[in-house]
Amino acid sequence: MWQLDQQLRGDTITVGDLPLCRVLLNDDGNYPWLILVPRREDLVELTDLNESGRTTLMREIAQVSAALKGHTRCHKINVAALGNVVAQLHVHIIARFRTDPAWPNPVWGKVKRFPQEKAQSDLLVTAMRSALQIGALQG
Amino acid sequence: MWQLDQQLRGDTITVGDLPLCRVLLNDDGNYPWLILVPRREDLVELTDLNESGRTTLMREIAQVSAALKGHTRCHKINVAALGNVVAQLHVHIIARFRTDPAWPNPVWGKVKRFPQEKAQSDLLVTAMRSALQIGALQG
Repeated sequence: MWQLDQQLRGDTITVGDLPLCRVLLNDDGNYPWLILVPRREDLVELTDLNESGRTTLMREIAQVSAALKGHTRCHKINVAALGNVVAQLHVHIIARFRTDPAWPNPVWGKVKRFPQEKAQSDLLVTAMRSALQIGALQG
Repeated sequence: MWQLDQQLRGDTITVGDLPLCRVLLNDDGNYPWLILVPRREDLVELTDLNESGRTTLMREIAQVSAALKGHTRCHKINVAALGNVVAQLHVHIIARFRTDPAWPNPVWGKVKRFPQEKAQSDLLVTAMRSALQIGALQG
């Protein structure tokens, strides 16, 4: 049975489920930042998914990228599957602005994370649920 | 007509062409680091490719990831499409080791790039051509 990694759970707010992935909002007020986690056990590398799973993952990356770009009107989307710290396969999808605190560098290790205002995260979660046509998880 | 971005050209050694992407070796002796560039004009975001193109890109990401991991026996593959500096759509595929100079951080901005020894880059290019069953480009 698939379970979300504890560190990912602690750092994020749940948006909902696409057919393959749990969609999470990374709670960092510096950037609008979503994370996709395929809900299958024991995945570490992209190549641990079979070809059909990878195709679905790419479809969901594109859907979430378009939803995030459409809502934020950001200048660039950054997509990354790193996993050096949290092994469970997860894909970062980050809205970047030329005015954000790390631009043009990648976001990692640049400025300290700070929790978003609840009103701000609620707004983004609601917008993403609407754009992706997914509901809040039950229970 | 598609042309490779000048900065990408300057920083890399050409491995060859898969059906969609030019495969490049990023010439940084700190990490075995490949870059895939879809050979289609005017691509910036993943979502600028249509669904069929994205599926092919994911297939090539998986092929190159497997080839790089198989050859280097690295601990983790990092995959990223950032594009904040070089706008032309390109995907980094980096072999990471627990002993490398940036581990467990992402590689960007951690240590200074240095050119590889030619013998070292030749070995990796030859191994990747063999694993991916692609030849050197002509002319």
